[in-house]
Amino acid sequence: MKNYKSYLIDLDGTMYKGKSKIPEADGFIQELQSRNIPFMFVTNNSSRTPEVTVEKLKNFGIHADVNQVMTASLATANYIQQEKPDATAFVIGEVGLTEALEQKGIQIVDHNPDYVVIGIDRHNTYRKIRDACLFVQNGAKFVATNPDIKVPTEKGLVPGNGAFVNLIENVTGIKPEVVGKPSGLMLQIALDKLGIPVEDAIMVGDNYHTDILAGIRAGMDTLHVQTGVTTKDELTQFGTQPTYTIETLSEWFN
Amino acid sequence: MKNYKSYLIDLDGTMYKGKSKIPEADGFIQELQSRNIPFMFVTNNSSRTPEVTVEKLKNFGIHADVNQVMTASLATANYIQQEKPDATAFVIGEVGLTEALEQKGIQIVDHNPDYVVIGIDRHNTYRKIRDACLFVQNGAKFVATNPDIKVPTEKGLVPGNGAFVNLIENVTGIKPEVVGKPSGLMLQIALDKLGIPVEDAIMVGDNYHTDILAGIRAGMDTLHVQTGVTTKDELTQFGTQPTYTIETLSEWFN
Repeated sequence: MKNYKSYLIDLDGTMYKGKSKIPEADGFIQELQSRNIPFMFVTNNSSRTPEVTVEKLKNFGIHADVNQVMTASLATANYIQQEKPDATAFVIGEVGLTEALEQKGIQIVDHNPDYVVIGIDRHNTYRKIRDACLFVQNGAKFVATNPDIKVPTEKGLVPGNGAFVNLIENVTGIKPEVVGKPSGLMLQIALDKLGIPVEDAIMVGDNYHTDILAGIRAGMDTLHVQTGVTTKDELTQFGTQPTYTIETLSEWFN
Repeated sequence: MKNYKSYLIDLDGTMYKGKSKIPEADGFIQELQSRNIPFMFVTNNSSRTPEVTVEKLKNFGIHADVNQVMTASLATANYIQQEKPDATAFVIGEVGLTEALEQKGIQIVDHNPDYVVIGIDRHNTYRKIRDACLFVQNGAKFVATNPDIKVPTEKGLVPGNGAFVNLIENVTGIKPEVVGKPSGLMLQIALDKLGIPVEDAIMVGDNYHTDILAGIRAGMDTLHVQTGVTTKDELTQFGTQPTYTIETLSEWFN
């Protein structure tokens, strides 16, 4: 096992499972902290602010700083700021996204935006979706925080951001720039923020289709943990394998 | 040319073009009326009531009775009533759809529906779409008035009903029963109402992908008219050809 200088770590399925604790997660984080290895959580969730995520982690005995949480919304705001400082954006999204954009100086507008930015919005309307379609056709750059089509809840599957992203693509014929996993973009932005070269870092997660693929696309080594979505058996069917796969995170530092 | 006993006729591209008159359309209808040949307009529009369509036709010099307009909403209501009298339905849609369902005795509900019925709804919300997804997963039958993904307007393409139908299918993995064109279902329902066997009727329309395909699927002869979407050149690329193609409707009865 290589001596990684930094870890990017998924949340659901890796640090906790919905509302349940994953017993090996807090020990893994404590080990990183005691070794002074910088790490960052990377999550496709675009509605929650980092503050809310830090609070959630605390409930599972995991102590992190708000600077150690990279959400798809923060990454999207970083991405736009780097591409076009003082950009304007028409936004479909919740507070996690609007706050992130405003903190990076991106002005949220209702007319002639430079960007159309879409994250999950549980107050979405036909009118907002229609306006997004028209702005994209008029040349605004189409950026999506994350491409998750469906989100599991106690009641069943509900539409995720990707369902609306696909709708706008189907109407306009224009593909979005996707920032969240399985795109490698969010991981690159997280590593930039940490100041760590890609070859010294590793991506840790349970879901091959999001976490591991994003790590591979970002050019990172990857650590698959079998506490979440992708089982060890399912893993074998994929062409490009993660660098490592382990049953639980307690195996890693032993 | 066969002596057809009944005509099913498309509206946009065949009887008028957006807000513009098609000069040969009113003469064609007058010819049918003077020969006492029963006909019915068949439209994928699910938001407009037949009364509004009759008014619109009047502006182009075409006089029709409300009973001569079959909308995708009316056909959907007929379809459900035949399949399950006294059904309940959760509805995403506008007045053209809700009126049509209520007139057929279908009760519109917010819980445990037998059907989830979706037509274009310019007041659609995340909440309605989420509820539709959950009801479909719980076993409600998923019925769509029409599958049109995009609708041209002066400002550009805006989302049509099919965009939301596809979204719900993507989230739930469940395919809808589609009533409007290019399904043959609406045409069969129109012919049932007219009491004319399929082999004695002809479907008239400008759009190969909707009108002509629906006619073919319903087992009807088809008449393509080159005043709308599909040109004579484009037509040649399709495997199954319409029975006839003409430049304008004035050629037909000559």
